Amino acid sequence: MNKIKFGIAGVGRMGSIHLENLVTKFQDAEVVAISDINPNTNTLAEKFGVSKVYDQFEDMVNDKEIEALVICSPTDFHANHIILAAKAGKQIFCEKPMDLSLETVKEVIKIVEAAGVKLMIAFNRRFDPNFKKVQRIVSEGKIGKPQVIKITSRDPGPPSVSYIKVSGGLFLDMAIHDFDMARFMVNHEVEEVYATGAVFVDPEIEKAGDIDTAVTTLTFKNGTIAVIDNCRKAAYGYDQRLEVFGDSGMCGSENKLHDNNFHYDSNGVHTALPLDFFMDRYADSYFNEMRAFIECLKNNEAPPTTGHDGIMSLAIGLAAKKSLAENRPVKLAEIL
Amino acid sequence: MNKIKFGIAGVGRMGSIHLENLVTKFQDAEVVAISDINPNTNTLAEKFGVSKVYDQFEDMVNDKEIEALVICSPTDFHANHIILAAKAGKQIFCEKPMDLSLETVKEVIKIVEAAGVKLMIAFNRRFDPNFKKVQRIVSEGKIGKPQVIKITSRDPGPPSVSYIKVSGGLFLDMAIHDFDMARFMVNHEVEEVYATGAVFVDPEIEKAGDIDTAVTTLTFKNGTIAVIDNCRKAAYGYDQRLEVFGDSGMCGSENKLHDNNFHYDSNGVHTALPLDFFMDRYADSYFNEMRAFIECLKNNEAPPTTGHDGIMSLAIGLAAKKSLAENRPVKLAEIL
Amino acid sequence: MNKIKFGIAGVGRMGSIHLENLVTKFQDAEVVAISDINPNTNTLAEKFGVSKVYDQFEDMVNDKEIEALVICSPTDFHANHIILAAKAGKQIFCEKPMDLSLETVKEVIKIVEAAGVKLMIAFNRRFDPNFKKVQRIVSEGKIGKPQVIKITSRDPGPPSVSYIKVSGGLFLDMAIHDFDMARFMVNHEVEEVYATGAVFVDPEIEKAGDIDTAVTTLTFKNGTIAVIDNCRKAAYGYDQRLEVFGDSGMCGSENKLHDNNFHYDSNGVHTALPLDFFMDRYADSYFNEMRAFIECLKNNEAPPTTGHDGIMSLAIGLAAKKSLAENRPVKLAEIL
Amino acid sequence: MNKIKFGIAGVGRMGSIHLENLVTKFQDAEVVAISDINPNTNTLAEKFGVSKVYDQFEDMVNDKEIEALVICSPTDFHANHIILAAKAGKQIFCEKPMDLSLETVKEVIKIVEAAGVKLMIAFNRRFDPNFKKVQRIVSEGKIGKPQVIKITSRDPGPPSVSYIKVSGGLFLDMAIHDFDMARFMVNHEVEEVYATGAVFVDPEIEKAGDIDTAVTTLTFKNGTIAVIDNCRKAAYGYDQRLEVFGDSGMCGSENKLHDNNFHYDSNGVHTALPLDFFMDRYADSYFNEMRAFIECLKNNEAPPTTGHDGIMSLAIGLAAKKSLAENRPVKLAEIL
Repeated sequence: MNKIKFGIAGVGRMGSIHLENLVTKFQDAEVVAISDINPNTNTLAEKFGVSKVYDQFEDMVNDKEIEALVICSPTDFHANHIILAAKAGKQIFCEKPMDLSLETVKEVIKIVEAAGVKLMIAFNRRFDPNFKKVQRIVSEGKIGKPQVIKITSRDPGPPSVSYIKVSGGLFLDMAIHDFDMARFMVNHEVEEVYATGAVFVDPEIEKAGDIDTAVTTLTFKNGTIAVIDNCRKAAYGYDQRLEVFGDSGMCGSENKLHDNNFHYDSNGVHTALPLDFFMDRYADSYFNEMRAFIECLKNNEAPPTTGHDGIMSLAIGLAAKKSLAENRPVKLAEIL
Repeated sequence: MNKIKFGIAGVGRMGSIHLENLVTKFQDAEVVAISDINPNTNTLAEKFGVSKVYDQFEDMVNDKEIEALVICSPTDFHANHIILAAKAGKQIFCEKPMDLSLETVKEVIKIVEAAGVKLMIAFNRRFDPNFKKVQRIVSEGKIGKPQVIKITSRDPGPPSVSYIKVSGGLFLDMAIHDFDMARFMVNHEVEEVYATGAVFVDPEIEKAGDIDTAVTTLTFKNGTIAVIDNCRKAAYGYDQRLEVFGDSGMCGSENKLHDNNFHYDSNGVHTALPLDFFMDRYADSYFNEMRAFIECLKNNEAPPTTGHDGIMSLAIGLAAKKSLAENRPVKLAEIL
Repeated sequence: MNKIKFGIAGVGRMGSIHLENLVTKFQDAEVVAISDINPNTNTLAEKFGVSKVYDQFEDMVNDKEIEALVICSPTDFHANHIILAAKAGKQIFCEKPMDLSLETVKEVIKIVEAAGVKLMIAFNRRFDPNFKKVQRIVSEGKIGKPQVIKITSRDPGPPSVSYIKVSGGLFLDMAIHDFDMARFMVNHEVEEVYATGAVFVDPEIEKAGDIDTAVTTLTFKNGTIAVIDNCRKAAYGYDQRLEVFGDSGMCGSENKLHDNNFHYDSNGVHTALPLDFFMDRYADSYFNEMRAFIECLKNNEAPPTTGHDGIMSLAIGLAAKKSLAENRPVKLAEIL
Repeated sequence: MNKIKFGIAGVGRMGSIHLENLVTKFQDAEVVAISDINPNTNTLAEKFGVSKVYDQFEDMVNDKEIEALVICSPTDFHANHIILAAKAGKQIFCEKPMDLSLETVKEVIKIVEAAGVKLMIAFNRRFDPNFKKVQRIVSEGKIGKPQVIKITSRDPGPPSVSYIKVSGGLFLDMAIHDFDMARFMVNHEVEEVYATGAVFVDPEIEKAGDIDTAVTTLTFKNGTIAVIDNCRKAAYGYDQRLEVFGDSGMCGSENKLHDNNFHYDSNGVHTALPLDFFMDRYADSYFNEMRAFIECLKNNEAPPTTGHDGIMSLAIGLAAKKSLAENRPVKLAEIL
């Protein structure tokens, strides 16, 4: 079997997950190089038997041995790295968001299309087995026409304020996953966005110009309404729930819990909390999205999550920001 | 023991519930009269041992024996009946809404206050044991400061279109319960309302100038955000759920089910649907609200749900209608 | 409508339930007399509008107005009361057990049969809506052939030791309900019984010659195995669960809970305990069994739970006692 | 870091799991050799980078490089392999059961003790995170004194009849896990065993001299009663539940499910079945038990599951067989 030869750009938290998955779980893939300015990268490369380590992405991108690049560099490098990769003729898997500027993203996609390479944007939650199954139930018509979608997405704790300042804020670094999930379920595009929000978790977040709690309503072109509630901090763990209500039923997904145990005492029945670490909660999704990327390379098919998905969820996020700032519903057409 | 002597105005669906409860479950109450233009009222009176039957409310209201009136007449009679009752010095328990006009409601309350009688508005869901317990958990601070409240309120099926035409529509006859529930949980007043909606259930509802599906976002003065999703029809029953998310936890209430049974077969695990009839689902609440009314009469205390609650939920409903019509968030101050 | 005229013998805890149900919930029944040596009986009679009060059952039983007797006297009066009632030509509803002696029970049944009156033994749990539905699922073949039945039946707290001394003990006053339930589910007779037990709750129970915790295995003639675990005390409430496992699936019933609420905090998810009072837990069943008795009188049909059921569950209880005493499986044929 | 050098005897289903875990998940272990008569073993060795492959265990056992042996050969080889390994001074991890003969097992343990090597018996379920947590709750006294333990253990489907013939039957190859689990929870030894059983699944199993459905009651020396129900086939998956009831509460573990999704339609609420493959259900336990073995080697501590555990669960299994055959409770002392 021919193994697809991978390079990984950035081996921080996400890059390390993809590195380990590719090395230990895929027999049809091989990681031949990684790039990272962190001097500890060599240790990691050794551990996983990666022979080439580059300080600079710019050096790795021209490595002739590499067929596909996994881009896990910080967000503000994504656009440049995708462009370089496309021009070098590499297949591209990139973490979301592609960029915080819609113009940049559009430009990047043009270049990728001109280069004729594949670009998959890592909306990993679409590959979570639970959500995937919900989507299948919906798409098979088992609940009829989707009318209302409810997504609850709360983190166990906020990121650092310094991260919040550069991340694009709650709508662009956190809710963007949920915007994409809503699109995944409805299979239509959003017409209008209304967002309201507040700062409850940490006043420093307000000083950084962001909010930590939000409720966003999306009205889709086909009439479906999605409502998403986000918070940077849930005292009880990582709250990731989804519900799709249609004219003949309802389906959805509850949280994944630490265990299935119960404890009864004279005060009540006590059961386990949701998993509280995203890497545990979404472990399967990281594997599955890479599996999907490799399949689309092997079968020369379009990736299941594309630059278009990147544009649309970014646009919804920008519309939500504008809606919050101007306290009015914002048409997506105003943004795109 | 002195029994409080009641008259009941209108013994349709709700009036019959109060009649039966008062007669069979309260030893400190006595129903001495009922009024209804329906000729079958005599049969009902006989069944429950009520000696006096009036065709006209106007006749009953001056019956000297009556201390308290339960007003279950159609909505457009409420205001007039309350005014007559107040002027006759009767204690008043009235089904919601008091009226569809805010001016009328304000006027009615002034008259009630001038008469010095008590007026309790029947927001029965506050007296549902499950919701009551949620409110107690919240008010005891067990989840910390409430940040986001989610209410799902879906009927098993729509009322007749003729009813919808006179009822004030989804926001005023259905969601008004949920607006009150949100106020009950937050214990603050609403600042702003944004509503979006659609017609999915029946095009006749659209022709009647109403919607059948809505998502309403309430922003409270203290920052709490409530989001309410309503639908006139849920294929799986009567969906009545509540969730309150605060900075140290979350609490809420799941649906009441037909039973606690399970059935496993090779296709899955099958369990019972929510109760689908409001009189089953909220049976306890009807008893409890009447219990509370009687207690406030016996102890000469203020009723737990007042004309003010009637005004505020009506105002939220009117703001939601305006928001939907004008596609913008509407301040409650614009309405009040 | 002709109302069936009832007399109630004994208006302690169970008698009061039947009295209230008959008076307030059945329009085709009328309680014309009650008998009880307790001097407070008059107050109760007045409250429920019962005109005749007898000190002695022997006086009531010959009251010509009475068609049906509800026997709720202490267990050691049951046999005598049934015999008198049968000889007086009354229809009979009797609380379980009929007697602690199998010979007596057999004799009583002969007399009842000779008298040609109906005798219903109050195995109320068969009329609990949850268990009834489980039985329906089983009898409709939805889980295939029943192979293993598991019943958990734990009381919230033990009765007084003085009661235990006269009650026949755990197998005859508590587990007898579960033995009947197993027979109800399997719809076959028991072949053999093995019981093991211990005293964990209170050493006084041991001194009284009884146990407070038991596990009983019933092997039915058709091969089905039932295992029943009983305890006189569960710290978390009244634990009443059932599970039936068959070759094509499993069904059963979970506990009924105080409410459907949830509370998440950083320690876990907390939900409600099972109902802890048998009169709450089984309220529906008391109504339903009386409904069934009245129907069988009106339609001149056999009662759904008969003297035969009384014999069989008593025999299983006696076999369990013998099994425990002799530490060996005991055939039901040794007892009957 | 010094890596512990492993040899694996038998790389069928269980051996392959341990091989993959040791190679991909343990940085302090190294698999240097595997032995198996299967000619495909080389492919497996290559895949996991194992340099030495032996046809015969007898050749591998003397490989000086090997420190620890993982014995996954067929059951009837276990005793011999353990003896050879002990005599060669290797540390030993062996799948259960050690042997079907109690005398052989006792002899093997003597030899192991004389050799001064460690022997861990792979009662993997003790290392399942859910059951482990239940045991911790019990051992911390959170439910008080354990009174009744209920274990449900049903396979999704029966093994081949040819396997049943040599496996020792339901009690020795299947229920033995549950007997060990009961001992793990109670932390005392069993006094007496009563078993009843039947053939429901396949008449061929009866012809093979075995049963496919059983209920076993264990009475422990401290009075705790455990009841275990087993079946070779559950139409709805792999049913693995545990409940421990004590004087101040109850705790336990529900099944692990395929997902946490729900689907409501007009027929009911539909949720996922239990996992149906033991390697999925117990994947964590296989990793954890190996982790525990490596820790005990590194820290020179006694293994958490020992030859004594192997003897005791085997003795319970033999007592259960005798109980079924002779239809009477059997003291463990009769067996040991």
